[in-house]
Amino acid sequence: MSKFIIVGDIVSPTSLNELQCYSGYIQVENGKITEVGTREAFDIKQNVGLHIDVIKPEQFVMPGFVDCHTHAPQFPNLGLGLDRPLLEWLDKYTFPLENKYSDEQFAANVYEKVVKRLLNNGTTTACYFGSLHLNGTLELVKSAIQHNQRALVGKVSMNIQNNAGYYNNTADELRDVELFINSVNGYQNSLVEPIITPRFAVSCDGELMRGLSNLANKYQCAIQSHISENKKEIEYVLQIHSSCSDYTDIYNRCGILNNRCIMAHAVYLSDTEMSTFARLGVSVAHCPASNTRLRSGMCPVRRLLDYNVSVGLGTDVSGGDSASILDAMRRAMDVSEHLSMTQGVGPAIGWKEALYLATAGGAKALGLQDRIGTFEVGKSFDALLIDMAVPHGPIDNYTTSSAGTDAIVDKVQKFVYCGDDRNIVQAYVNGKQVKNIQQSWTK
Amino acid sequence: MSKFIIVGDIVSPTSLNELQCYSGYIQVENGKITEVGTREAFDIKQNVGLHIDVIKPEQFVMPGFVDCHTHAPQFPNLGLGLDRPLLEWLDKYTFPLENKYSDEQFAANVYEKVVKRLLNNGTTTACYFGSLHLNGTLELVKSAIQHNQRALVGKVSMNIQNNAGYYNNTADELRDVELFINSVNGYQNSLVEPIITPRFAVSCDGELMRGLSNLANKYQCAIQSHISENKKEIEYVLQIHSSCSDYTDIYNRCGILNNRCIMAHAVYLSDTEMSTFARLGVSVAHCPASNTRLRSGMCPVRRLLDYNVSVGLGTDVSGGDSASILDAMRRAMDVSEHLSMTQGVGPAIGWKEALYLATAGGAKALGLQDRIGTFEVGKSFDALLIDMAVPHGPIDNYTTSSAGTDAIVDKVQKFVYCGDDRNIVQAYVNGKQVKNIQQSWTK
Ligand SMILES: [Zn+2]
Ligand SMILES: [Zn+2]
Repeated sequence: MSKFIIVGDIVSPTSLNELQCYSGYIQVENGKITEVGTREAFDIKQNVGLHIDVIKPEQFVMPGFVDCHTHAPQFPNLGLGLDRPLLEWLDKYTFPLENKYSDEQFAANVYEKVVKRLLNNGTTTACYFGSLHLNGTLELVKSAIQHNQRALVGKVSMNIQNNAGYYNNTADELRDVELFINSVNGYQNSLVEPIITPRFAVSCDGELMRGLSNLANKYQCAIQSHISENKKEIEYVLQIHSSCSDYTDIYNRCGILNNRCIMAHAVYLSDTEMSTFARLGVSVAHCPASNTRLRSGMCPVRRLLDYNVSVGLGTDVSGGDSASILDAMRRAMDVSEHLSMTQGVGPAIGWKEALYLATAGGAKALGLQDRIGTFEVGKSFDALLIDMAVPHGPIDNYTTSSAGTDAIVDKVQKFVYCGDDRNIVQAYVNGKQVKNIQQSWTK
Repeated sequence: MSKFIIVGDIVSPTSLNELQCYSGYIQVENGKITEVGTREAFDIKQNVGLHIDVIKPEQFVMPGFVDCHTHAPQFPNLGLGLDRPLLEWLDKYTFPLENKYSDEQFAANVYEKVVKRLLNNGTTTACYFGSLHLNGTLELVKSAIQHNQRALVGKVSMNIQNNAGYYNNTADELRDVELFINSVNGYQNSLVEPIITPRFAVSCDGELMRGLSNLANKYQCAIQSHISENKKEIEYVLQIHSSCSDYTDIYNRCGILNNRCIMAHAVYLSDTEMSTFARLGVSVAHCPASNTRLRSGMCPVRRLLDYNVSVGLGTDVSGGDSASILDAMRRAMDVSEHLSMTQGVGPAIGWKEALYLATAGGAKALGLQDRIGTFEVGKSFDALLIDMAVPHGPIDNYTTSSAGTDAIVDKVQKFVYCGDDRNIVQAYVNGKQVKNIQQSWTK
């Protein structure tokens, strides 16, 4: 199926303020979008030798979800241990589990499930934290390649001692990261790339981070880390980096911050830090589920957007208790409403904005805006086929509708508020089908 | 199957502070629990002539969910129109839809889906708002009876004019309510009872509410309404009831408040009002989803509990965008965390407390604590069979677990945070199976 056309309702959030909803078609050749147009334009064009797929009235096509921040090795802990604060949770639940990924077979087994789960949830692009282990994390790379998921994969770097003995010395760590980059690049897969991943300033010293910055420059890699998640964490890093003016300054002095850098959380950034993010082109992965579950705080996404900081959504498993970007959208709206109610940070993020953050916004935050995020000619076809009337799904279909509002917008709105993975009947990455619900049910 | 035993992991939240988790058995005869005990006790007891169902290690049995507040006629609007504030949303979306339930066939078609959807979500007891229509709302009663759901069903009372022409004159309304009560009681169904339902002080005057209070006394009915949902609403009702000191006073003067009364929302109650609620035994249906989606506010549940007010959870469809009490539990935790972060109202509601509110707490809020909510001898067997390893479910099962913590508690915690209707493989009301996932899939 190297050349095909999908015809029907098309939804594409092109900016924070614009959600395109129309009846039309998308033509795909060798994974890339070669034509997009209205239904009328389709009806008069020549379509010789093309596979044409006319979707149902209860369906629509939208760009795939982008998960800007999640921890693949922590998936077995989903929904566990969420009665602890961040630093205790890391020591008691997270590090002991991550330590097990020195076992490559264990890693391969978990990562197989992780990648399939995310594709099932419509996450066509994921930005992953792996573990400290070179070979363990290469299993995650292999799993993404095998299942044709678009991914940035990071081998996690840490060189400061912790109770679990889960860290590396600086020289070994820098050598392992360079080996990791070369191994991933050696696979020559166009969908998966390595990302430099200092865990955060609590577990990396300046020397390690400067070395990682050099590797990022040498290999033209993206960088990811955590920033300003939790008040105690901020206090602590400013203690151990006492010459720095703020958390952003710590990373900036080490050369970590640039326009291919994405930072998770950013809950407590000052105005100065937000404008530094905007100036340097640093993006934020907003992770509302984990910020709430670990009692970290409430990220003022509206303020970040007002500062022109690029924002995407992250599930942050297993601090976050859901591996679904649909869930992240809803909780981003919730947190934003609650901040608006209590602190006057507003207006709250609406559902169309949340949909943008979950797709095109995430693509931009990861520096992939030229390749994915919207349905434009030249981009890859990374897409979801949504069906509002799937059998045994979460949404009942009633013959009545509330008013004569736009039928496509109503469908999309219902999906955003009430849908789940059952409504995502197909997913495509670079034109290739990576989920088909018929196959899922019979497997 | 009038006499059977279920053997396996049993979960029962007996109070806010106690969640019983143990391996044991429950014996049910003619719908009622006649014995409960440990696994050891089961192994030595005589079980001649009983059907014995030993459940799997990945399963557990828990009490059914209680939805203390939802609007059955609004289900077709789920996920729609949530960009409007309360009073505008009522006028533009809600009243025009509810008005359609003068058509009994339309009502029957919707209510069939509503009751099945709630049972599918594990809601074994629901406290429903119907519509203004006597016959339309009787269709809801019939649907609950047909599908064996435990329910309190209210014909909604309104006598103040609105744009949709959706109200009644006082005399007709009181006559209809009495007819409704007599009709429901005439069905002589032990699971379904009528509940007096003045919509709220915006749409009912004092004369109507006093009349309804008399009917409640005459027929020994429970009462439900809305209170203190939204700041504009509070301002407005205090304007039109200018002699009253607060919202609670309005209802109290009309005789609406007593220990069979449940009020939805209660977001902005003063200390005085909370202690009045506690003193009179008035319960609160906490509806976090709708409070957030309609930008109403954040209910300080911890403060209500500290005042000894009885609290249950409500989905409040379609102001709420989910018909699932699992979702209500998570959002109750979210709102409570966010209030704790921003206003110091804490500690936040934990997952065990949320589970209590969703089951035994809801039963108590509805005055049904002697019949349902926990697994105690003499109560009805209203229960859910939860399976953590259901095929195509939302939860992956990994061979590793984080630590040597209690295996049952881990299962329950994962279900609370990550489960959905797919994990609810069976549901029982009064000992009768009302959901069986095998049947659902093949229907
Ligand atoms: Zn993280
Ligand atoms: Zn309501």
